[in-house]
Amino acid sequence: FPSKLPNVGTTIFTVMSALAAEHKAVNLGQGFPDFGCDPKLLDAVNDAMRAGHNQYPPMTGWPALREAVASKIEALHARRYEAGSEITITAGATQAILTIILATVHKGDEVIVLDPCYDSYVPNIEMAGGVPVRVPLTPGSFRPDFAKIAAAITPRTRLLIINSPHNPSATIWTDAEMRQLEALLAPTNVLLISDEVYEHMVYDGAQHLSSVRYPGLAERAFIVSSFGKTFHVTGWKVGTVAAPAALTAEFRKVHQFNVFTVNTPMQAGLAQYMQDPAPYMNLSAFYQAKRDLFVNGLKGSRLKLLPTAGTYFLCADISSVSDLNEADFCQWLVKEVGVAAIPLSAFYGDGFDQRVVRFCFAKKDETLIEAAARLRKL
Amino acid sequence: FPSKLPNVGTTIFTVMSALAAEHKAVNLGQGFPDFGCDPKLLDAVNDAMRAGHNQYPPMTGWPALREAVASKIEALHARRYEAGSEITITAGATQAILTIILATVHKGDEVIVLDPCYDSYVPNIEMAGGVPVRVPLTPGSFRPDFAKIAAAITPRTRLLIINSPHNPSATIWTDAEMRQLEALLAPTNVLLISDEVYEHMVYDGAQHLSSVRYPGLAERAFIVSSFGKTFHVTGWKVGTVAAPAALTAEFRKVHQFNVFTVNTPMQAGLAQYMQDPAPYMNLSAFYQAKRDLFVNGLKGSRLKLLPTAGTYFLCADISSVSDLNEADFCQWLVKEVGVAAIPLSAFYGDGFDQRVVRFCFAKKDETLIEAAARLRKL
Ligand SMILES: CSCCC(=O)C(=O)O
Ligand SMILES: CSCCC(=O)C(=O)O
Repeated sequence: FPSKLPNVGTTIFTVMSALAAEHKAVNLGQGFPDFGCDPKLLDAVNDAMRAGHNQYPPMTGWPALREAVASKIEALHARRYEAGSEITITAGATQAILTIILATVHKGDEVIVLDPCYDSYVPNIEMAGGVPVRVPLTPGSFRPDFAKIAAAITPRTRLLIINSPHNPSATIWTDAEMRQLEALLAPTNVLLISDEVYEHMVYDGAQHLSSVRYPGLAERAFIVSSFGKTFHVTGWKVGTVAAPAALTAEFRKVHQFNVFTVNTPMQAGLAQYMQDPAPYMNLSAFYQAKRDLFVNGLKGSRLKLLPTAGTYFLCADISSVSDLNEADFCQWLVKEVGVAAIPLSAFYGDGFDQRVVRFCFAKKDETLIEAAARLRKL
Repeated sequence: FPSKLPNVGTTIFTVMSALAAEHKAVNLGQGFPDFGCDPKLLDAVNDAMRAGHNQYPPMTGWPALREAVASKIEALHARRYEAGSEITITAGATQAILTIILATVHKGDEVIVLDPCYDSYVPNIEMAGGVPVRVPLTPGSFRPDFAKIAAAITPRTRLLIINSPHNPSATIWTDAEMRQLEALLAPTNVLLISDEVYEHMVYDGAQHLSSVRYPGLAERAFIVSSFGKTFHVTGWKVGTVAAPAALTAEFRKVHQFNVFTVNTPMQAGLAQYMQDPAPYMNLSAFYQAKRDLFVNGLKGSRLKLLPTAGTYFLCADISSVSDLNEADFCQWLVKEVGVAAIPLSAFYGDGFDQRVVRFCFAKKDETLIEAAARLRKL
């Protein structure tokens, strides 16, 4: 039978993690911690299981977890989402994004993505029968180019997807940029997916500027986040979507017929654990120290490091260490140097190659020190 | 913006569970156990978490769990699926089914479902741009009507969905029927979803006749099952799809961009727990005793009970106890008698009403005794 996704292979993250294992390389490719989470979180999940919370939770999510998310958003961004009608728990942010797209994009509707972007967005749009419209961020700086975004908006544009802090470039949007987007969308009916899964990883005193804070964005936005990234449990696959009630109602129609609902013990455990805000309030400091350790370790290497303003990624320009293109460089690096990285070209529709690769620094200090030592030899 | 699913409301299961809670009724509506699972299974999950299995598992699923599923299928049905290329772990059977449909159904492709059927199938088909073709099972007996199925097959038919043991009718397909289906599909390219989530609940000495056993079906089939239903943990949302490698490859393209992967600790715990086949091999005896207890408790009631050959559901004809239609009867029953049930009309596209409602007997003996006492008063 004909493939629905003829141009899709296995995600680069899976490919690179497999190569890293095969070559016993230090895996700075796929974004996940190589350290454990807080044992208190495991205690909370275990308690939930032992208390018998193992059957279907409500379709929309465990009530106390929706409440915890609503309270957190209110405390951080001063906007109240109703836990009952505006917050839904998902099986991770990836499932959230597909579900939003299936719930909003009709056949032929256009969806604007800003390249480089996460590799699920475009196949998700195609799965819904939509038309992906790829607008590049400014090469080099990765800043949004509002003239280009404006030019891409047509009467058929249903949705725009933004992501800040940004994977893979590790940039964050500024207040001026958020306001500019708000003004640009004001006269349109374009809906917004605001992918904020790295919301608790912003550095050097910066603040995460959620779309929640901009009324003209919030009223049209699905705010997507991830518990796995915030609490060092990427394998738990629990995320969340906050959106105005009318958008949430359409979202849930599709959600209930995709996963129906999400793992009960993990939801109940996370709800309990989130009573204490310290773990997520301290996350930026925790990861800033790791960023700095890694950057220091790379002093003296010939890689040209790009700034990391947010996320747990560090990008590096390879042009003074290799003549290979990004993808070939990453293949060579994992085999010959023993470090796995991700080529930025994997995040572009046209495979645009700017000689930049991405390292994940959500790793033990010893892992980062070892990787830096290997990379200094380049 | 226009709804993608204008005719979809909240699933009947969610609605009925909410009504049951509101009226403090005995909830025999939504299918889930009101008792706990084996503590050994919780121990296995807890051990997995403490051992640090909390990051992304492979996209295709935890290897030992895929291996356990392959071994189980081979032991029970004498066909070997390769754990590497033919088994995928899903976030429950519902996610599995949507993902299969998104991976196979092109715009305008027809998909045949046999009414009454699970309420996610038809919206799933619509989400993929496909055309649902509803063929009724024979009213009264719920047997497949092969003349009607044959008449529904056209050159545009991409997929047929079957479900045995069958929710809601509690029937199971016979060997003659499975062979008849095999013969009917032999000259076609129609793919098959075989929803076998109740595979370990068949009674009175009958055997579950998986599509795996019929080569002409297995070669075109996605076999869907559920760990939640088999191990009394419906809230864990872990399922599985077994399919020939070429079908699995297309399935995984979509799966990786839907949920990417599935909760690690639950997968690792289930893999450990499945080393012992006793829990699933003994499940039919366990539920047969519950069925018989409930049926005995209903002796003397004016409900006309239909036979339960499989699943944890019992259907009852209400025509001698009420003049209401099924849906109104269920509303009345939950409020006035204090028992929640599901009207079979909820499983039909046209709301066909045959005066039959479904009770779930996956409940503690005391729950079943109390519910039966209330129902005897009808
Ligand atoms: C879902 S695997 C990829 C993890 C991730 O978000 C990344 O590495 O970009
Ligand atoms: C996903 S909620 C419904 C549970 C179930 O399978 C049923 O009651 O039929």
